[in-house]
Amino acid sequence: MTRYLPILEWGRDYTRAALSRDLLAAVIVTIMLIPQSLAYALLAGLPPEAGIYASIVPILLYAVFGTSRVLAVGPVAVVSLMTAAAIGQVAQQGTAGYAVAALTLAGLSGAMLLAMGLLRLGFLANFLSHPVIAGFISASGILIAASQLKHILGISAEGHTLIELAGALLANLGQFNPITLAIGVLATGFLFWVRAHLKPTLRRAGLPPRLADVIAKAGPVAAVAASTAAVWAFGLDGQGVRIVGPVPQSLPPFTLPGFAPELVRQLLLPALLISIIGFVESISVAQTLAARRRQRIDPDQELIGLGAANIGAAFSGGYPVTGGFARSVVNFDAGAETPAAGAFTALGLAVAAVALTPLVYYLPNATLAATIIVAVLGLVDLSILSKTWRYSRADFTAVASTIALTLAFGVEIGVSAGVLASIVLHLLKTSKPHVAEVGLVPGSQHFRNINRHKVETDPALVTLRVDESLYFVNARFLEDLLVRRVADHPEIRNVVLMCSAINEIDYSALESLEAINARLTEQGIGLHLSEVKGPVMDRLRATHFLDGLNGRVFLSQYDAWAALATAPGAARDGAAAGGG
Amino acid sequence: MTRYLPILEWGRDYTRAALSRDLLAAVIVTIMLIPQSLAYALLAGLPPEAGIYASIVPILLYAVFGTSRVLAVGPVAVVSLMTAAAIGQVAQQGTAGYAVAALTLAGLSGAMLLAMGLLRLGFLANFLSHPVIAGFISASGILIAASQLKHILGISAEGHTLIELAGALLANLGQFNPITLAIGVLATGFLFWVRAHLKPTLRRAGLPPRLADVIAKAGPVAAVAASTAAVWAFGLDGQGVRIVGPVPQSLPPFTLPGFAPELVRQLLLPALLISIIGFVESISVAQTLAARRRQRIDPDQELIGLGAANIGAAFSGGYPVTGGFARSVVNFDAGAETPAAGAFTALGLAVAAVALTPLVYYLPNATLAATIIVAVLGLVDLSILSKTWRYSRADFTAVASTIALTLAFGVEIGVSAGVLASIVLHLLKTSKPHVAEVGLVPGSQHFRNINRHKVETDPALVTLRVDESLYFVNARFLEDLLVRRVADHPEIRNVVLMCSAINEIDYSALESLEAINARLTEQGIGLHLSEVKGPVMDRLRATHFLDGLNGRVFLSQYDAWAALATAPGAARDGAAAGGG
Repeated sequence: MTRYLPILEWGRDYTRAALSRDLLAAVIVTIMLIPQSLAYALLAGLPPEAGIYASIVPILLYAVFGTSRVLAVGPVAVVSLMTAAAIGQVAQQGTAGYAVAALTLAGLSGAMLLAMGLLRLGFLANFLSHPVIAGFISASGILIAASQLKHILGISAEGHTLIELAGALLANLGQFNPITLAIGVLATGFLFWVRAHLKPTLRRAGLPPRLADVIAKAGPVAAVAASTAAVWAFGLDGQGVRIVGPVPQSLPPFTLPGFAPELVRQLLLPALLISIIGFVESISVAQTLAARRRQRIDPDQELIGLGAANIGAAFSGGYPVTGGFARSVVNFDAGAETPAAGAFTALGLAVAAVALTPLVYYLPNATLAATIIVAVLGLVDLSILSKTWRYSRADFTAVASTIALTLAFGVEIGVSAGVLASIVLHLLKTSKPHVAEVGLVPGSQHFRNINRHKVETDPALVTLRVDESLYFVNARFLEDLLVRRVADHPEIRNVVLMCSAINEIDYSALESLEAINARLTEQGIGLHLSEVKGPVMDRLRATHFLDGLNGRVFLSQYDAWAALATAPGAARDGAAAGGG
Repeated sequence: MTRYLPILEWGRDYTRAALSRDLLAAVIVTIMLIPQSLAYALLAGLPPEAGIYASIVPILLYAVFGTSRVLAVGPVAVVSLMTAAAIGQVAQQGTAGYAVAALTLAGLSGAMLLAMGLLRLGFLANFLSHPVIAGFISASGILIAASQLKHILGISAEGHTLIELAGALLANLGQFNPITLAIGVLATGFLFWVRAHLKPTLRRAGLPPRLADVIAKAGPVAAVAASTAAVWAFGLDGQGVRIVGPVPQSLPPFTLPGFAPELVRQLLLPALLISIIGFVESISVAQTLAARRRQRIDPDQELIGLGAANIGAAFSGGYPVTGGFARSVVNFDAGAETPAAGAFTALGLAVAAVALTPLVYYLPNATLAATIIVAVLGLVDLSILSKTWRYSRADFTAVASTIALTLAFGVEIGVSAGVLASIVLHLLKTSKPHVAEVGLVPGSQHFRNINRHKVETDPALVTLRVDESLYFVNARFLEDLLVRRVADHPEIRNVVLMCSAINEIDYSALESLEAINARLTEQGIGLHLSEVKGPVMDRLRATHFLDGLNGRVFLSQYDAWAALATAPGAARDGAAAGGG
């Protein structure tokens, strides 16, 4: 029971001390979330209240079903961008259909996450490689920042790719609003300054570190308050500065997502991508924070928690949500101990939704855009390109294509290409495996590559260590290689396949081995195996392969050497032996 | 130059003896191909002459560019079925658009094969596992046989899946033509008898084996001649027996494939599938036959040869072609020595196209259907199901889904699903790799699984052998496993990762190893590596990982044991140690 309802575990021994810490964290997170929620709703193309609603019911549901103690669930930048890209294809921004599509997207995503959790498919998140995720997040950050420039300039410019955005911005650049631009530039500059310098400045002024931290985190609120006051005082909205305008004073409404078959069909793939990206982002944050306090995260239960949160969003006027990095870190740093902190945050936001929404009437969109730009540029870290370039061309290719395709063709194509590229590159690599001819390291029973180490060999005995599982992708490779090797060295009498790196032999490879055995038998050459792993041997025993094998299976390569080496040659020096 | 034009190699020393053997083979193959070409055209939904045309120019081009000495290129059963499935979606059978679409399909397929050959992508054929191919060919055989029943019954029944075909056959069963049925059943029975019993009978009658073989292979010609004569003599075409009818007496015409963007877009994916399946079928036949004569096949040049053949088919009134199994074996058995045999066959067919086509006017479709049924049922071998079931559930799942989906949804979905299934199943397998804890085999320097062998261990030293490359799909797996292992056994002071089966460490896995190292360092536990392969070590050396590693890297596991084992325990018996 506690497996599916983690709340029963932490709720049982909830202490007064934990309560006070959770309350403090909730206050700080609530203050931070008000402008952030409005901003992300703007990014998703939805009315501002959708961002607040998406932060209330989902947090409560996650608190019941989630396994992380500190994860803060709600709208996040990348998922908001993906939402805009997905719904933009099926409805016009600003229409009722657009908001309904957002609910449907959240509902579908929630149902998928829930199903994956119940089927225990949490490990599927591993199909996204770390560099691909890093590249995707960075590219999304750039796209998001670019999409906000129109608010800073006070012009219209729609687009889901960098090229579309640049074109639209250039086309309408002439119509920029000078006052909007002034507010946008000031707010952006202020927020960058807050991010980089406010905390050290406060510390130098003698404030305790915790307080300095809290004040620095509240920087966006100051920008919001100052720019709102300026618009109100000078009536700047009459001079073309776009403002948030009326926001209904209400608790999250009960809403019904649309499930028209055509709509569902069009949103299925985007919902799947949003679910996967949201889950990967959320679980990374949750695991990072849990590790710091030696807590554990259950990926399958996390899927259930996020699924419940998204279904909640679908029925309470929200849009797709996930565990956010920034808000979770703030929650953690502010001392949150249990998911109750999240529940209190939800309460705080509910109060704000009812009481404080009139205050944001004069809030300029440019300020919200500034908060988004400053937040997402913190996500952009292109060093992954140079890191992977140095380490592995395959990883680099996957990252580079993810980044390039995300920027050029949008988030959906970008992330799909990244996943595909990393899988295909891996398969390509295993299709031409590294094969080492090995010899005995003198004075040991250990065998290593004759081209890298000084080892003993025997001209009539060749031992090949295939550094890859044998399966359909490379089944024919070994056959070709052995045929060539034996043809080039007529002195070979015995071939040993050292199987220490062969983790699997599938049916295609089994057929290849049978063909190799038949061919070597014809030529009077023995085929032997050594160091076959238990699971692989179990399989082979179930076939006739071992009966037909013309040679033997040795427990260790040294046993094979002891039995088969007839005229051990002089020690060979790897450096001298050269390539091959 | 000879690399791209193999004809320059064998053409240079072409002997008189080779000429006479090639001529004999060509005569036999020509006789066999006449009814077969008509039949496969019928299967593809094209006029009968298309089958003959598709056997002339393509053979000539393959003779110039191909590397197999004996491969016979032309229409084959599976590709004919795939052609019907592909063009059936874009045009109505019997219309001019249908024939043009067939040309376009051949042109696209030829261009793809040529491009793949020039880019040296021949190895991509390996992405189809052997069992998936076997399953697909068997399922296609069943589909093809089912699609021919309408001709045996003399009714109309269209469909691309077993369900559609069964439904259509049942719906129109009442309109069957008794005379057609009689011809069809007799022809099918006769051909099955010829296949199984004619050769032994002739041998018993004292004929030399070669001649017996040739006569047995000519069986279909006898069926064709007898049924044609019967229709002509008794005027059966007036009684509802459908016949081939007028076939133009002409050399292959010069034709232009259509390249309307919409048509090309619709045929792109089918052309790709046909190219891959055709190439895989062709290369398997070519390699099998080449191996018997110790010749070599160059897969990349084969792509070029098949590409040229298909482009030839597109411009000479044909449809997609590939190297056929039956015709190539006949060519081989008949003693063909060089591709010149193919050229002579093309000549023979050209003569037939001009002179003999009036003779097939009264040939009943039922006889052609019978030759197809007998030929394709020879391809059906469902034993691959039981073989893979015994060997590996993953292979079985891939085969079973290929067969089931091919029968239920047609060839295109079937083969795509087979490829996808085998890749995904492989990735899933590597996502949860086998990890063995190993100990020292007494009296040796060899380390094996503590649960399978009687080995020595040390409670403070745990050595894990991960039986899989570390890459993004399983990067997190090892982290979780080690955290659990160390938490459960507080006596552990040192962890050794024995890397003999780790063939690759990608960037995601590198990050995981860094995280593992950081965590173990915090807990005061040493992390060591042993038996790291050369290529993996080269990579690691390029990073800061080895600087940060809190332990050492040992050349062999025995070195690690010698350095780290402090209190070797008693020998542990695998059977007694139990699971874990």
